[in-house]
Amino acid sequence: MKQPSALVALVDALRALPGVGPKSAQRMAYHLMQHDREGAERLGHALLFATEHLRHCERCNTFTEARICDVCSDESRDPTLLAVVETPSDQVMLEQTMTYRGLYFVLMGRLSPLDRIGPKEIHFERLVKRATDGVVKEVVLATNFTNEGEATAHYLAQALKARGLAVTRLARGVPVGGELEYVDAGTIARAMLDRRAI
Amino acid sequence: MKQPSALVALVDALRALPGVGPKSAQRMAYHLMQHDREGAERLGHALLFATEHLRHCERCNTFTEARICDVCSDESRDPTLLAVVETPSDQVMLEQTMTYRGLYFVLMGRLSPLDRIGPKEIHFERLVKRATDGVVKEVVLATNFTNEGEATAHYLAQALKARGLAVTRLARGVPVGGELEYVDAGTIARAMLDRRAI
Ligand SMILES: [Zn+2]
Ligand SMILES: [Zn+2]
Repeated sequence: MKQPSALVALVDALRALPGVGPKSAQRMAYHLMQHDREGAERLGHALLFATEHLRHCERCNTFTEARICDVCSDESRDPTLLAVVETPSDQVMLEQTMTYRGLYFVLMGRLSPLDRIGPKEIHFERLVKRATDGVVKEVVLATNFTNEGEATAHYLAQALKARGLAVTRLARGVPVGGELEYVDAGTIARAMLDRRAI
Repeated sequence: MKQPSALVALVDALRALPGVGPKSAQRMAYHLMQHDREGAERLGHALLFATEHLRHCERCNTFTEARICDVCSDESRDPTLLAVVETPSDQVMLEQTMTYRGLYFVLMGRLSPLDRIGPKEIHFERLVKRATDGVVKEVVLATNFTNEGEATAHYLAQALKARGLAVTRLARGVPVGGELEYVDAGTIARAMLDRRAI
């Protein structure tokens, strides 16, 4: 007995999604075909449309439908500042803070030797070329404060400082609204070391 | 700052997948667009093809690309036996045992009042009609031995016995190869109660 080929192909194709194994691919396929054909069709079209239209901004590497993204094309921004983030969502978060009006470079990842993500995978050469355009004066490293994000920042800082750029990193410390009792000791230790005059 | 609309639409559409919230939809979209465009395209086509071609067998309710599925069309099968299973995968499992040569009805679910899955959602009326075609003599309830599967079997048994059908259930007991020391007490209790002469 064999399952219909359209179903087998769908279960198989769903495994392209990260974290989806054979069991959950099957569960997803059954769910879509049984309960949400409209959603399946919409997802199908969205995938094909995105595959066809999404590309990487030639300047900052984020996803865009144009050659150069809206942010990079915005002439009101300060071109002497370049913030380096791991993902487009990190960029969105930074933008929401309204505290930064410079430009960006999106790594689309972070260094992770165990996952075989090295400098090439985070587009290190393109970043160096972008940061040394003669206009950028300061590179703000805004990678995550995880082990991998910190290692990435460290690696980039060495390389960019060696090329004569000013390199900064987002400050670490107690979160706004944070009660010391509930903040982890490592964060408090860092906040103590980085304490500043008021 | 807004993300490109093709990306927003993709993240949104991915949420049709069961168990996928906003964060994992975004992670999936980034992964596909960054690392696996071929997989994204294949998944897109598979979804559209399945949506267009997969339907439910008019006799047994499983997924099929034809009006009547291969199993239901197989005249070498015993039409007096009808096994009721929750999903197409359960049917595949039963087929692999080579111990059953009757026909099937696939509920495409199990009763689950908390999830608002009642008799209508498991196609109860169609099952009754199918089982009372005058040819079927015995209905083998092969729903899972979970709480919901057992409740479903209980509900169906009552309704089908009231219509004069012989109703059976897969035997419960110690799994083949099972060591008593590692089998849960409930299973051993059931095996003791259902013990049989040898
Ligand atoms: Zn850009
Ligand atoms: Zn059938």
